[in-house]
Amino acid sequence: MALAPPLRASLADIFGAALSTDPAECLVYGYDNSRRQAAPDAVVFPQTHEQVVALVRTCRAARTPLVARGRGTNTTGATVPVAGGVVASFERMNRVLRLDPANRLAVVEPGVLNGDLQTALKPLGFFWAPDPTSSPYCSIGGNLACNSAGPRTVKYGAPRENTLGLRAVAGSGEEFRAGYYTSKGATGYDLTRLLIGAEGTLALITEATLKLTPLPAAKRVLRATYSGIEAAAAAVSRIMAQPVTPCALEFLDDEALRLARRHGGEAIPVAGAMLLIEVDGEADFLPAAEQSVARAAAGEGLLEWRSAANAAEVDSLWAARKALSPALRSIAPMKINEDVVVPVSRLPQLIAGLKQISEKYKIPIVNFGHAGNGNIHVNLLYRPEDPAQAAAAPGCLAAVFDLVLALDGTLSGEHGIGLVKREFLPRALDPVSLELMRRIKAQFDPDGILNPGKLLPD
Amino acid sequence: MALAPPLRASLADIFGAALSTDPAECLVYGYDNSRRQAAPDAVVFPQTHEQVVALVRTCRAARTPLVARGRGTNTTGATVPVAGGVVASFERMNRVLRLDPANRLAVVEPGVLNGDLQTALKPLGFFWAPDPTSSPYCSIGGNLACNSAGPRTVKYGAPRENTLGLRAVAGSGEEFRAGYYTSKGATGYDLTRLLIGAEGTLALITEATLKLTPLPAAKRVLRATYSGIEAAAAAVSRIMAQPVTPCALEFLDDEALRLARRHGGEAIPVAGAMLLIEVDGEADFLPAAEQSVARAAAGEGLLEWRSAANAAEVDSLWAARKALSPALRSIAPMKINEDVVVPVSRLPQLIAGLKQISEKYKIPIVNFGHAGNGNIHVNLLYRPEDPAQAAAAPGCLAAVFDLVLALDGTLSGEHGIGLVKREFLPRALDPVSLELMRRIKAQFDPDGILNPGKLLPD
Ligand SMILES: Cc1cc2nc3c(=O)[nH]c(=O)nc-3n(C[C@H](O)[C@H](O)[C@H](O)COP(=O)(O)OP(=O)(O)OC[C@H]3O[C@@H](n4cnc5c(N)ncnc54)[C@H](O)[C@@H]3O)c2cc1C
Ligand SMILES: Cc1cc2nc3c(=O)[nH]c(=O)nc-3n(C[C@H](O)[C@H](O)[C@H](O)COP(=O)(O)OP(=O)(O)OC[C@H]3O[C@@H](n4cnc5c(N)ncnc54)[C@H](O)[C@@H]3O)c2cc1C
Repeated sequence: MALAPPLRASLADIFGAALSTDPAECLVYGYDNSRRQAAPDAVVFPQTHEQVVALVRTCRAARTPLVARGRGTNTTGATVPVAGGVVASFERMNRVLRLDPANRLAVVEPGVLNGDLQTALKPLGFFWAPDPTSSPYCSIGGNLACNSAGPRTVKYGAPRENTLGLRAVAGSGEEFRAGYYTSKGATGYDLTRLLIGAEGTLALITEATLKLTPLPAAKRVLRATYSGIEAAAAAVSRIMAQPVTPCALEFLDDEALRLARRHGGEAIPVAGAMLLIEVDGEADFLPAAEQSVARAAAGEGLLEWRSAANAAEVDSLWAARKALSPALRSIAPMKINEDVVVPVSRLPQLIAGLKQISEKYKIPIVNFGHAGNGNIHVNLLYRPEDPAQAAAAPGCLAAVFDLVLALDGTLSGEHGIGLVKREFLPRALDPVSLELMRRIKAQFDPDGILNPGKLLPD
Repeated sequence: MALAPPLRASLADIFGAALSTDPAECLVYGYDNSRRQAAPDAVVFPQTHEQVVALVRTCRAARTPLVARGRGTNTTGATVPVAGGVVASFERMNRVLRLDPANRLAVVEPGVLNGDLQTALKPLGFFWAPDPTSSPYCSIGGNLACNSAGPRTVKYGAPRENTLGLRAVAGSGEEFRAGYYTSKGATGYDLTRLLIGAEGTLALITEATLKLTPLPAAKRVLRATYSGIEAAAAAVSRIMAQPVTPCALEFLDDEALRLARRHGGEAIPVAGAMLLIEVDGEADFLPAAEQSVARAAAGEGLLEWRSAANAAEVDSLWAARKALSPALRSIAPMKINEDVVVPVSRLPQLIAGLKQISEKYKIPIVNFGHAGNGNIHVNLLYRPEDPAQAAAAPGCLAAVFDLVLALDGTLSGEHGIGLVKREFLPRALDPVSLELMRRIKAQFDPDGILNPGKLLPD
């Protein structure tokens, strides 16, 4: 659909050459890592807060949908402009405004890449805790909007635990600041956390004040192999019950290991399941930390425990883990990738239950993920050309969610809801919570122009 | 004002003997640690979630104010029923419902005392991070509603960083659950954090799922004395810029030290200022941790650095620090106690500015507090019988807030807004944020029955 000429003119006024209505360019901003797609009517590239204010007001006046976009790496269709309208790509609004180690904070524009921020912080001895595996390609704005996390989250938290304040423009066109430049505050309702995880449905974030964490002096990478997935899941729960919190506690099942071995080579063991564990801290403390974790990891089904022998082995363990998502996609183009989360003590039941579901629906399921948070990436691999599998897939997915909810878990640990999990949200939330969310949405975005069709079900 | 007979009858139906309209008993539930006072028309003592649901619905139907109360230790008048109505004291709804170290969580009713929870957790090797100095006397519900913090917050966070989920009843009478039983989640807007710090103006909390932290194996208590307050403030900022995060970093100025010495005896040094510092972790690591902090603490004005020699000295250092609030009250009945917060690098400017303000308005100011968070308790001591001081006090307070805001700080680090700081809130928040807060309030509590006259200015 073409933009109405007056809207087009207003956008041209605001953005000049940073407006595109070229159909080919629009196409490129219409898909993300979800494989969903829809063409926007225009793409704009804001570079200032003021442009974003003008943009939102213009779109609101025209009742035109407006979708924020970081780098489009989200997996849920959260940036797909299903209702058309304007995509605002923040890729050019990417300045680091302040690195302030004395106050353990950084102020950034939303388009800064997570990896670029980490690189800038490293020489100062700090990092920002959220570390999605996509770190080199994804933006801080996207990280905040999805509450994205990563391996380190088990020890250091997600964006909600690591953001001090935000500047933003609500869907109403009103601009505001929320939060503090301090590590503590009790001055009114927490609008900062409300925007985090809201997937661009309440406000566009134009600036973020992030809480920094000192880089640990040293790190040790460990691996434990188990005869089976239940044994490994039980070990995760024991590890989390002892006092040394690992800074990564990743799980790979047998299928994931096989895949990983193809990428990581012989350093990746053959086993029923593997845990990839990191402990960090002062170098002197690491032997004791390893011992404490090793004691918890020991038990029925442990095949082998070892410290990565050298830097090459560390690299290959992590490379293999990080290659899993793309590798899975290449072998099974129609995989359904969920990132369910359960209390860690329920992991053995989750893993056992997933096996039963896989057998019942005759759909292979590959599991790996951030086990220390109980966050498992459940990959349903099916061949759409197999009619039996294609027919079974929806039931299989529903069974996975039923299992997760029965175990006191929830639908998403870090990927969010977006387009693809929206219809399942009412299962995970009680009706009053959902209703309160809708009412909150109406206060920020009374005309519903921001990212329509996402997160909240119709 | 007496309750209307039908409302009284409904409350009696719900609460039986756990309803009081006795004026003397009502009086006792009409004040808190703020010295403000107003008599409610009734006090009720809920013990179940269902009673709270019935209570809110009844009050809403009668358009009667309803004020949640933990233990009334807040300093801002947050529980004073300025509009009359019903006080719901949660002191009897105080069961620990689940201690679940395997999942690092505890599920509690709101009336559980912070100190009782810590005692129950200790043998399991865990603690809940928020540790207000009032811990033995204050409730988890109050801690959550105020986002209360304490010395440990500098390393371990406040309630917003340490709460996984809540059960609650909105002012509309709708009951809901928010959050998760997991350490991670990306399933919709964050209603949990929205209720934390809301001072009972959005919903009554009936259950909380709290995130637990493993107890560190060992701790070391350190003290550094300085020739003056600016030197100490500069050291705080250097300590926070190095990688070892202390688990307490408390500041006492010269006046506070004099007071402390009266309580703590000779173990408390005479100096221009003192830092009371704790580092924790594995015992083996503490010498290195102390060294790193000591290096940062060294510099112009450092008089003496030492580790607490023995358990008695540790106790007396902390006892003196903890006795400061009550001690101050006893010497200056009309003290104004603020808990402002600034970025730590601004502490030297804050402390220097406070000294100037004190001289200008001729009102003694005593400062101490959680310096690692930049959170300073600023105590304006004035004798109301001195007309010059009484007249100068409001201007002096306004000057303190102006200074704090000019330094990128905010009004309250942990005590909240309540009744006494409400009129200052518009200075600290931008008008749109405040307006969004009002709109959110209207969604949870459309008739404004919950804690009217608190937090948000009229
Ligand atoms: C190989 C790979 C690995 C991954 N690994 C992880 C992982 O380990 N953990 C994890 O959590 N995720 C992971 N992801 C998912 C994804 O990278 C994250 O969700 C990431 O945070 C998205 O960032 P983005 O910049 O690409 O945002 P986008 O995908 O462009 O947008 C995501 C959401 O953010 C909103 N948004 C973007 N910018 C703004 C803004 N300025 N204001 C308001 N809303 C905004 C969008 O509207 C959308 O709702 C992975 C993805 C890939 C491809
Ligand atoms: C000696 C002393 C030392 C202190 N030290 C500290 C300190 O170090 N750090 C700090 O932060 N504070 C401190 N305080 C202040 C106070 O203890 C805290 O604010 C505490 O959290 C209040 O808890 P309470 O149970 O007394 O709550 P109350 O004072 O009864 O209530 C506080 C607020 O919580 C609301 N509330 C209570 N229960 C619920 C519920 N179930 N649902 C919804 N809302 C509810 C009330 O409506 C009110 O708004 C101190 C106080 C004293 C007297």
